[in-house]
Amino acid sequence: MATKLAFVGFGGVGQALAEIISERSGELKQSYGMDLQVVAVSDMMKGSVYRPEGLDIDQLLETVRKNGTVEQYPDQSGVLKGWSSLETIEHSNADVIVEVTFTDVHTGEPAISHCKAAFQNGKSVVTTNKGPVALAYRELSKLAEEQDVFFGFEGTVMSGTPALRMPVMALAGNRIKEIKGILNGTINYILTEMEKGSSYEGALKQAQRLGYAEADPTNDVEGYDARYKAAILANYLMGADLHHTEVECKGITSLTKEQVQQAVEEGEKWRLLARVTDEDGAVKASVKPERISADDPLAGVTGATNAIVYECDLAGPIMLTGAGAGLKETGFSLLIDLIHYAKRHAKATI
Amino acid sequence: MATKLAFVGFGGVGQALAEIISERSGELKQSYGMDLQVVAVSDMMKGSVYRPEGLDIDQLLETVRKNGTVEQYPDQSGVLKGWSSLETIEHSNADVIVEVTFTDVHTGEPAISHCKAAFQNGKSVVTTNKGPVALAYRELSKLAEEQDVFFGFEGTVMSGTPALRMPVMALAGNRIKEIKGILNGTINYILTEMEKGSSYEGALKQAQRLGYAEADPTNDVEGYDARYKAAILANYLMGADLHHTEVECKGITSLTKEQVQQAVEEGEKWRLLARVTDEDGAVKASVKPERISADDPLAGVTGATNAIVYECDLAGPIMLTGAGAGLKETGFSLLIDLIHYAKRHAKATI
Repeated sequence: MATKLAFVGFGGVGQALAEIISERSGELKQSYGMDLQVVAVSDMMKGSVYRPEGLDIDQLLETVRKNGTVEQYPDQSGVLKGWSSLETIEHSNADVIVEVTFTDVHTGEPAISHCKAAFQNGKSVVTTNKGPVALAYRELSKLAEEQDVFFGFEGTVMSGTPALRMPVMALAGNRIKEIKGILNGTINYILTEMEKGSSYEGALKQAQRLGYAEADPTNDVEGYDARYKAAILANYLMGADLHHTEVECKGITSLTKEQVQQAVEEGEKWRLLARVTDEDGAVKASVKPERISADDPLAGVTGATNAIVYECDLAGPIMLTGAGAGLKETGFSLLIDLIHYAKRHAKATI
Repeated sequence: MATKLAFVGFGGVGQALAEIISERSGELKQSYGMDLQVVAVSDMMKGSVYRPEGLDIDQLLETVRKNGTVEQYPDQSGVLKGWSSLETIEHSNADVIVEVTFTDVHTGEPAISHCKAAFQNGKSVVTTNKGPVALAYRELSKLAEEQDVFFGFEGTVMSGTPALRMPVMALAGNRIKEIKGILNGTINYILTEMEKGSSYEGALKQAQRLGYAEADPTNDVEGYDARYKAAILANYLMGADLHHTEVECKGITSLTKEQVQQAVEEGEKWRLLARVTDEDGAVKASVKPERISADDPLAGVTGATNAIVYECDLAGPIMLTGAGAGLKETGFSLLIDLIHYAKRHAKATI
């Protein structure tokens, strides 16, 4: 039986997932028994289209790329247009909502409301939005559990690099006392450039030119982005109930080129580290620039790359390194969530 | 219902697992619904003891540590002694055989025969022995599947660092074109010491003093150990049917201190890399010293640490770094196999 998807939001990440699904549908069917069908798209800017029997993905992608909207999707039989996100979530026949809206991280909206509506209507959610997991994980996961639906959010911490699923699946049985990581590629790129001699301003401009940093870089350089991710790690992996504002947070705007270079001369490196520690059940988190030894594996992480270390009492320190951003990478994070949705579904129907 | 374990082999790794099970039995029950019971131990040198109702793990460990044998285990009711490994595998009431014998990697014996006997008797196997997976993966996995039993071997490539389970669980959906890694800690330690100025002989002696290298270091320094691991990666992760002798293999014995230091001066590092590539279905593997740029993440892996990079077409290069050896770490690799055995079992009985 096909798994019916509704995209709520259809920007770069959503389109990347749609492309992956279209491109390797045969493989997904053969390897994972997944028959993914897109039944709806609803996007604030790009309009909405719904067809209970399934939309043609390639045509959908072509339409949005050519016209900037999905409203020009051909009016074949059964096609319905104009539904809002909530109408799509509540009334479509989708099994899974792919929640990839442009969401305000401070409020987590509209993503939080979308997740709630989906769960209340017995639909599963996969999302790359940090807001719902950083701000409302307890409530949302409880609701999903009550409704016996799936809630996937692998991409919220390190995009396609499985910072959430890897420890749960492959490090279970360990007591993890600390998780620390480089979770913001923009900052790490800037620090690495400053090590090579750039000023902060010069490195930031270069990051903006390369598309790593936004025009208003506040969310990255003040550490806010990493703070949301630290909250997700604390809440999902360490069973805490931390609000992101309880995460101590300091960015890199006051670091000078001189400080960065002096550290290098003294065999150390400045890195913005997110740390989550569990001291006998008391979970604390912080995000701040730290001077670490050049021998520290995290010091070797350069450019926009992300990395995370799980301090395991049995397996020792385990480090995972990967892109941490990118459209295709983030599209993949939704795909791996969908693969686990399918696994769970297969299990329930056996 | 308890899961009954029989240890076949009871050296450092087996004892490490027994200790973990004893120490965190409450946690394992609560978090994973696992009630692990040790019913038998059979070791070529340390004798054997079997009790269908379960042995006292702490008493077992105390007995073997004090006497070097389990034969002095108290003769309480139901205790039976003197069974060979095969008798234990065939006739005990164990659900899972923990296969941790001292096995000849060239022949894979006695581990291969132990795995076969277990599967043929409807018993699952978790093992840290490379032999069965490097030399007989096809045959053994087919047999396990036919008998509907579990075959776990996470520890065979990077010990407690989940080099096998992570990609299967968390990178599924990617096409992995290449896997490359530093899979022998002894060699990496020696190369790192040579970078600091040691001769090959000096670094090897130091590795032997630290317990990284054996008195006869051939298996490590000639690359044979890494070659078995490359074969396991090729067969398990890339669906190949490669015999380890088909893996091109060159060790580090002919590398001089001068070569190693010259590379450093020229911004490069020598690393022994295992590479497995999939070129349109043709899987090839090699193990050899390669000069890589100092900027390559694998160049930053120093000392006895292991690391592996999966070149994913969607998620990009994903690197996993960890110990790659150690008693507790390898004991953990068996525990994570058992956790997945329990998950599978729970699934089947739902």
